[in-house]
Amino acid sequence: MSRLDVFINRMVSQRACLDYAIDATTGMGGPVFELGLGNGRTFDHLRERMPEREIYVFERKVESNPASTPDEDMTILGDVRETLPQALKRFGPTAQLVHADLGGHNLEKNVLFAKTISPLIEPMLAVGGLMVSSDRMFFENLTEQPIPDTAIQGRCFIYRRDI
Amino acid sequence: MSRLDVFINRMVSQRACLDYAIDATTGMGGPVFELGLGNGRTFDHLRERMPEREIYVFERKVESNPASTPDEDMTILGDVRETLPQALKRFGPTAQLVHADLGGHNLEKNVLFAKTISPLIEPMLAVGGLMVSSDRMFFENLTEQPIPDTAIQGRCFIYRRDI
Ligand SMILES: C[S@@+](CC[C@H](N)C(=O)[O-])C[C@H]1O[C@@H](n2cnc3c(N)ncnc32)[C@H](O)[C@@H]1O
Ligand code: NI
Ligand code: NI
Repeated sequence: MSRLDVFINRMVSQRACLDYAIDATTGMGGPVFELGLGNGRTFDHLRERMPEREIYVFERKVESNPASTPDEDMTILGDVRETLPQALKRFGPTAQLVHADLGGHNLEKNVLFAKTISPLIEPMLAVGGLMVSSDRMFFENLTEQPIPDTAIQGRCFIYRRDI
Repeated sequence: MSRLDVFINRMVSQRACLDYAIDATTGMGGPVFELGLGNGRTFDHLRERMPEREIYVFERKVESNPASTPDEDMTILGDVRETLPQALKRFGPTAQLVHADLGGHNLEKNVLFAKTISPLIEPMLAVGGLMVSSDRMFFENLTEQPIPDTAIQGRCFIYRRDI
């Protein structure tokens, strides 16, 4: 499998999981959180598929394509390890959908980082809310969901707050 | 269509066109030219699918992922507007496969650039050689080929030197 194959699998899986989560949370209300803007491609996808929902973007440093840069008042600037606890105070447990794509090239670092932010993300979800991630997360009380057929196992993960 | 959709379409089409061209030129002999290294994903794909062929990479500035950085002696450093004419002197009309993914975000600039480099690429191909491009090219004597069914029209192009 080439790096091109792996990359395509990741993007296709990410889209499949996001589309699933968008459908499954339709009508729920509450904010959507995009963690990691990067180029802005998944942000663009989220806002196109759910123009009616409020999408807040968490990012250390905005360097997205101008075609998909969020409004300033929808951007939460800073390291998520600081901005997530602040956002919990501001929003409470209301998020209907959280998407995280924060990983870099170092797999070991990604796992450590996922362990660090899992307990910060978990309390932000409303009951019934979904969390979509490119990395395996480490939640206490969220339930891992099956991913859609068009996604590739291990390339994306979906979690749900049941209680 | 979101930027994520467009991007996935582009990557999937690129891979489909490359796989088609790799198959169609099997056994031909002659060098393969990758114009534009970028992250190195398509380079990784090319060398994985045809480990037996010599792949030269043309790039202004190598900034690829370390996992897919070509050997120094297979890297042709510099602006393709200068290095292509030099390579023509060195290799003659021997290329079996040329892949170009040089475009940036500015569509107008991409067209201009494609017009500039088309006459530089054209004489490098051997008879029967294929050129795969993410942008429409402007050749005098190469024939546009149908793209594979799994590729999306307008997202990749294949040209062939017939005479
Ligand atoms: C892989 S990119 C996201 C790509 C995006 N999903 C897309 O489709 O274009 C990861 C982003 O997460 C951001 N990031 C990584 N660690 C972060 C942290 N601790 N706090 C805030 N942002 C972070 C990086 O700056 C980068 O922009
Ligand atoms: Ni491989
Ligand atoms: Ni669109």
